[in-house]
Amino acid sequence: MARYTSMELIRFLLFDVHKVESLFQYERFSHLDAEQAWMILESAKLLADQEMFPYFKIFDETPATYDGKGNVKTHPQLKKIIQTAAAQSWIGGAAKFEHGGMQLPEMIFNTAQSIFQAANNSVQGYIGLSTGSADLITSFGNQEQIDTYVPHIYEGRWQGTMALTEPQAGSSLSDILTSAKETDQGYYHVKGQKIFISGGQHEAVDNFVHLTLARIEGAPDGVKGISLFIIPKFTPEADGTLRYNDVHCAGDFQKMGQRGYSTTHLSFGDNDDCRAFLVGEPHKGLSYMFQMMNGARISVGQCAAAVAMAAYQASLQYCLERPQGRLVSEKDPSKPPTLIINHADVQRMLLTQKSIAEASLSLAMECNKLYDQVHGTLGEERENNLLLLEILTPIVKTYASEQGSRSAALAIQTLGGYGFTTDFPVQQLYRDLKIMSLYEGTTGIQSLDLLGRKVSMQQGKAVKLLMQTISATMQDALGFDQLIPYAKKLGIELQRMGKVLEHLTGYALNGDTERYLSDATVFMEMAGHIVIAWQWLKMSLVAAKKIGQSDFQANQQSFYEGKIHTMEFFFKYELPHAEACAQTLVDEHTLTNIKNFDLFD
Amino acid sequence: MARYTSMELIRFLLFDVHKVESLFQYERFSHLDAEQAWMILESAKLLADQEMFPYFKIFDETPATYDGKGNVKTHPQLKKIIQTAAAQSWIGGAAKFEHGGMQLPEMIFNTAQSIFQAANNSVQGYIGLSTGSADLITSFGNQEQIDTYVPHIYEGRWQGTMALTEPQAGSSLSDILTSAKETDQGYYHVKGQKIFISGGQHEAVDNFVHLTLARIEGAPDGVKGISLFIIPKFTPEADGTLRYNDVHCAGDFQKMGQRGYSTTHLSFGDNDDCRAFLVGEPHKGLSYMFQMMNGARISVGQCAAAVAMAAYQASLQYCLERPQGRLVSEKDPSKPPTLIINHADVQRMLLTQKSIAEASLSLAMECNKLYDQVHGTLGEERENNLLLLEILTPIVKTYASEQGSRSAALAIQTLGGYGFTTDFPVQQLYRDLKIMSLYEGTTGIQSLDLLGRKVSMQQGKAVKLLMQTISATMQDALGFDQLIPYAKKLGIELQRMGKVLEHLTGYALNGDTERYLSDATVFMEMAGHIVIAWQWLKMSLVAAKKIGQSDFQANQQSFYEGKIHTMEFFFKYELPHAEACAQTLVDEHTLTNIKNFDLFD
Repeated sequence: MARYTSMELIRFLLFDVHKVESLFQYERFSHLDAEQAWMILESAKLLADQEMFPYFKIFDETPATYDGKGNVKTHPQLKKIIQTAAAQSWIGGAAKFEHGGMQLPEMIFNTAQSIFQAANNSVQGYIGLSTGSADLITSFGNQEQIDTYVPHIYEGRWQGTMALTEPQAGSSLSDILTSAKETDQGYYHVKGQKIFISGGQHEAVDNFVHLTLARIEGAPDGVKGISLFIIPKFTPEADGTLRYNDVHCAGDFQKMGQRGYSTTHLSFGDNDDCRAFLVGEPHKGLSYMFQMMNGARISVGQCAAAVAMAAYQASLQYCLERPQGRLVSEKDPSKPPTLIINHADVQRMLLTQKSIAEASLSLAMECNKLYDQVHGTLGEERENNLLLLEILTPIVKTYASEQGSRSAALAIQTLGGYGFTTDFPVQQLYRDLKIMSLYEGTTGIQSLDLLGRKVSMQQGKAVKLLMQTISATMQDALGFDQLIPYAKKLGIELQRMGKVLEHLTGYALNGDTERYLSDATVFMEMAGHIVIAWQWLKMSLVAAKKIGQSDFQANQQSFYEGKIHTMEFFFKYELPHAEACAQTLVDEHTLTNIKNFDLFD
Repeated sequence: MARYTSMELIRFLLFDVHKVESLFQYERFSHLDAEQAWMILESAKLLADQEMFPYFKIFDETPATYDGKGNVKTHPQLKKIIQTAAAQSWIGGAAKFEHGGMQLPEMIFNTAQSIFQAANNSVQGYIGLSTGSADLITSFGNQEQIDTYVPHIYEGRWQGTMALTEPQAGSSLSDILTSAKETDQGYYHVKGQKIFISGGQHEAVDNFVHLTLARIEGAPDGVKGISLFIIPKFTPEADGTLRYNDVHCAGDFQKMGQRGYSTTHLSFGDNDDCRAFLVGEPHKGLSYMFQMMNGARISVGQCAAAVAMAAYQASLQYCLERPQGRLVSEKDPSKPPTLIINHADVQRMLLTQKSIAEASLSLAMECNKLYDQVHGTLGEERENNLLLLEILTPIVKTYASEQGSRSAALAIQTLGGYGFTTDFPVQQLYRDLKIMSLYEGTTGIQSLDLLGRKVSMQQGKAVKLLMQTISATMQDALGFDQLIPYAKKLGIELQRMGKVLEHLTGYALNGDTERYLSDATVFMEMAGHIVIAWQWLKMSLVAAKKIGQSDFQANQQSFYEGKIHTMEFFFKYELPHAEACAQTLVDEHTLTNIKNFDLFD
């Protein structure tokens, strides 16, 4: 079977770099040990190998399609995948035992998801959405809601979704219009349109549970007037039967990628008979939804990393098998062609992909671990874990999706013309990947979140903490001769980031928020490069220690050396672009608020 | 009708920036004047509006498909387009009157093609290939060959193609195996397989004329043993009938983009009865083919620019119509949403696209003019024009295709989730554009050409000339206060490029060609940014002069100011990445020739 991820890398990241075993000290995870954790991941790999990866191309060729009558046709294998995944606890596995879960750390649970994402990213979407929506109900719903919905979702019989976007509002959630009117029956009547609802209709489940943002009549304007509702497509009656709840799928968007993943237009209450069940308190919907949203953002970043990894693996395999051309220094055309992996430019393209995909996966794992730590610690420790998680969330989402697209483009490039044909998977991965920079808040939105919220919250405490955390890795790296130059380089970048922030903060202090935020995306690009450089240094530190250990296994040497080499590559080829971003950011010249649209002629 | 290009920009580039009228002094073009030239381009726009653009999406939805029996089904409109284009001289228009052409400068002829490329890039491919192959026959074929093939091609009844690539050889032309055996009948018998032959089979013409590279039996190894042949699918007999020439279309590649453009697998001589007609002398085929190839490379760069322009126009239109969200400084959620073009990040995405697409079109026009000048001048002047053209060819091809993809990604991004759906054209343009970095030599091949051949030829004369030419623009710009800082910045970049080249040349002088060329692609990226900065300064210089003129029309002010603003944007946001590339290039650390493939685990 073709490789689509690297279990060797996952093992290294999980145990050596991010030390999953430290989580087993928490009561919640005390039932686990390293061996079990690895067996669980190997079972996930087997599931992906057998049920998901073989359908990767097929799902693209038989896309989800609307039948004109409210149904979205999907490939029959989808049902098998969802049911098998559910049976193996890949929907509810991170939930507590009492909710039917396996109490797996997110770090393990989501690493398994990353294998699914690499194998067949369309299909993992359905699973991930169900997980997130059940978790949301568990966190903020009442016991009846939990009992009514969560078990069905974990069993893979009902599909959970998140229904936020509306046609007229797009990214601007404060403008959503879906309205909810209270009744005296314990539910609300809802009316409205939602678009881009992933998994909102398909053929693999019996029911859909839409976690929906709506505005209760008379609620305040803006995001402070948004409430969270459960809106099932079919309401479960007391006798166990399902009653149609006036939730109509009005269409399915056809897309350039992720074609096996339905992207629906939902219409609630066309016949004024759509019942919605309030979750938690009125007007607090957006804050609840952000639990799911934050998880989804990390998951999208991880998915982008996993898809970039799949593209890298396909590209690497081709380069190891394809003979073509000769080295520049070989002038004799009668000599046999060399494998293309021997060409310097092909190596550059492979190492660029590796440097992006592996470190993005590492960063996603860092975030998943922080999530587990937040839930396992108290007081200041918890607070610090949370701050770090909050500041890294938009970064992993954006770096992995933006640079992942670049990485997948290089995968196509290594295959030459073949890469552009449907005979090879790289073009599909390239198409699939593009959605990641749009899901759950575009790159622009993530960048505003980073610079506008995360950097400034608690007087910059999160960004200080991040810089301290990076510095600590740097300090450790100074203990290894081979790593010293890179540790120093990273130190320079951190200092530069500090100066850039100081410069930008000047605008904010002068009340010019517009200007402070105008280049948020450039700041994001810079921060992403620095954070990824940190992940590489962190991986290299482990590798250097391993190489220095007496029990070091010689056959692993190339693996560890490869990590250090790739770090060196990243610092030489990628990191200098962080400085270029900094130059742009401190350039006083401003083009913001160009009022004359003729400029865009 | 939706805009897909800007005739205002084309007029500005053609007359004001690149001064097409200077070509009319040459005897060959003396029959033309500015008014005529513009009318010709307006007629091209009308053709594109009426026959090409309306089928842009339709061609994607009804891709060229192999019927299993040697034919490739294409949309019926293709025939109408090719015939109408031919009737309006858009295949042979640049040829001399004596060959049935209109003796148009390439600068005008190809600008018209850029309109077609923006309107429907799949369809322009068929036309452009016919033009290139007929020109190749005219340049190197004998009179009988010219008479036999060229008129049919110019009339749009026969399709010309270039048949280079073979399955086992890919980019490595020295390894092609298609063999030619001389007969005493005035032709050769040919046998072999060619893949990725664009336009190699379809339903819009009666015959195909494959300009094919093959190796005559007993020829030397490598590129010095390659000859050029005309291989028609049907050989015209003396009585005018067509005889099947054992040229079989064995398949059509399905692709991620340019789906309306057939990409065929051709098999010559399955029944040992394929007749090929030698063009020019034996073993000189590659040098002949490079005439067509060089033209094709500029055309691919121009096509990438045109497609990026179409994506930009679609994106701009959306941003001017779509209300969403409020400015950062607007805290009142009850205020109506603003048009998204008012958001700083959307402006950044639009200006990035504009800065890439417009300057790439400008650079393509620069190349087309140089081509015309080469053919209109003599002696040292001709030599200098040729050197500049040769060094700019790989740059326009690569910058436009690589950065064009980035630009189209931003077009998707401005539309948010809608951009990923097939309801909007930007995703198709993004898919189409990716092939441009692969056609006619990948980015890696172009970069080797730039650094390995073009930079070093005649002791660096071409690169010196390019730097002098850029310096001259810079000197002019120093005469305008507003442009001084940018002229100086460009001067710094030129100096830096000089230092980088000095550094790299050190390796070559020490005999380490492998190392000299190992980062050719990074050098290409740097050079591309500098050359595009030059194009922007050149455009700004014209704009600044216009603004300063007394006969300046006030309603054009925003257009000219827009050029200067976009130049400023490019220098602030894009150009710093040239310095980042320079940092990589002078970094002594080397990762070339990694022998241990486990590094890529």
